[in-house]
Amino acid sequence: MDFFEAVKARRSVRTYTDKAVPEEVIQKALDAALLAPNSSNMQTWGFYWVKSAEKKEALVKACLSQSAARTAQELVVIVAEPSLWRRNQKEMLRTLNENAGPKFALDYYGKLIPFLYGFQFLAPLKWLMFNGMGIFRPMARRPWSPRDNAEVSIKSAALASENFMLAISAQGFATCPMEGFDEVRVKRILKLKRSSRVVMVVSVGEANAEKGIWGPQLRFHREWFVHEV
Amino acid sequence: MDFFEAVKARRSVRTYTDKAVPEEVIQKALDAALLAPNSSNMQTWGFYWVKSAEKKEALVKACLSQSAARTAQELVVIVAEPSLWRRNQKEMLRTLNENAGPKFALDYYGKLIPFLYGFQFLAPLKWLMFNGMGIFRPMARRPWSPRDNAEVSIKSAALASENFMLAISAQGFATCPMEGFDEVRVKRILKLKRSSRVVMVVSVGEANAEKGIWGPQLRFHREWFVHEV
Repeated sequence: MDFFEAVKARRSVRTYTDKAVPEEVIQKALDAALLAPNSSNMQTWGFYWVKSAEKKEALVKACLSQSAARTAQELVVIVAEPSLWRRNQKEMLRTLNENAGPKFALDYYGKLIPFLYGFQFLAPLKWLMFNGMGIFRPMARRPWSPRDNAEVSIKSAALASENFMLAISAQGFATCPMEGFDEVRVKRILKLKRSSRVVMVVSVGEANAEKGIWGPQLRFHREWFVHEV
Repeated sequence: MDFFEAVKARRSVRTYTDKAVPEEVIQKALDAALLAPNSSNMQTWGFYWVKSAEKKEALVKACLSQSAARTAQELVVIVAEPSLWRRNQKEMLRTLNENAGPKFALDYYGKLIPFLYGFQFLAPLKWLMFNGMGIFRPMARRPWSPRDNAEVSIKSAALASENFMLAISAQGFATCPMEGFDEVRVKRILKLKRSSRVVMVVSVGEANAEKGIWGPQLRFHREWFVHEV
């Protein structure tokens, strides 16, 4: 499907039909998700496709039993997992060394990334350093805190979520991104790490023709959001 | 362009050619961005297309003068603006009333949204309420703090960012999403509100054939990220 058609076809669907979603539709959308741009290419994300009937039932409840979850054929939980930086950084360095990567990249992944993602007990010091130096010259101000690290991962996971949803739309199925869920319960169901954050639960299925969408797509005035400066 | 082609064609480009990007390419991508799903359809985002030569120069410096910014033809700053909820909520209620919207929607936007986005001085109380009730039954745990409200907007703005970047890719141009910037300076250049957060600065242009991308797209093992549970 044409890109712009896929964007226009994507609507948040709250009620699905009983039609099953073929396995390869989800797999293809997951592949698209993994190609999203992400912070420093650290890929600190996770995609949990919940297939077990028992876990699915628990997940629907954790999504406050909303119809977008209840009537869904498939549920995929997209998670920010900042703690993966260690494993991924090692793999990145291994790849760079194997391919005789440039020095700036080896320094970036060997020194800067561990400083930014690790040493979280130095948070107040990092804040002081970034904002102190920032008085005199342009300086990145974040991430200095664990919450900032989570935020960086959440942002990347959101980019991947959009790829996933558009990829489902491009294959003729529908999605609903849900943020109304009990994060504590979802983390327990998926056995996630303490530092991981649930970014959204995406339901997938075929839109119910009558009750699928709530009405025409409502966007406020373009000039409220687009500023040419 | 086919959706999956656009996803595959999108690479982060660090050096652009001198070729100008037609105005309508950016406008079309901004239109696609505005169609992204977003939290409660509150559209708390902003897209700042920096055209003034003076502001552009300052923005390049605030992006630490990296080549992805320096050699860019166009720069668009994507911003999370949680404070827009007030204006947008009023407009939403106006539209719902005009169209005799259902009671649950009027309640949602008339009561729940102000409670979640507003009354920020009640943050500790909200935390207590969400987590207290959450002991007994599934309960959304956020947003309870101003940082949570920012996070919700950041997530939606990231979804829009991906639409924007893919839309540029679908039109044969390239982008680079930058997170290495001085947020304090970017906010000053754009005269943003205190509560607004700069999500990313996206540069746009035609990829330089030799130096545009750093190498083949590197993604770690799929099974590290995709979990069927």
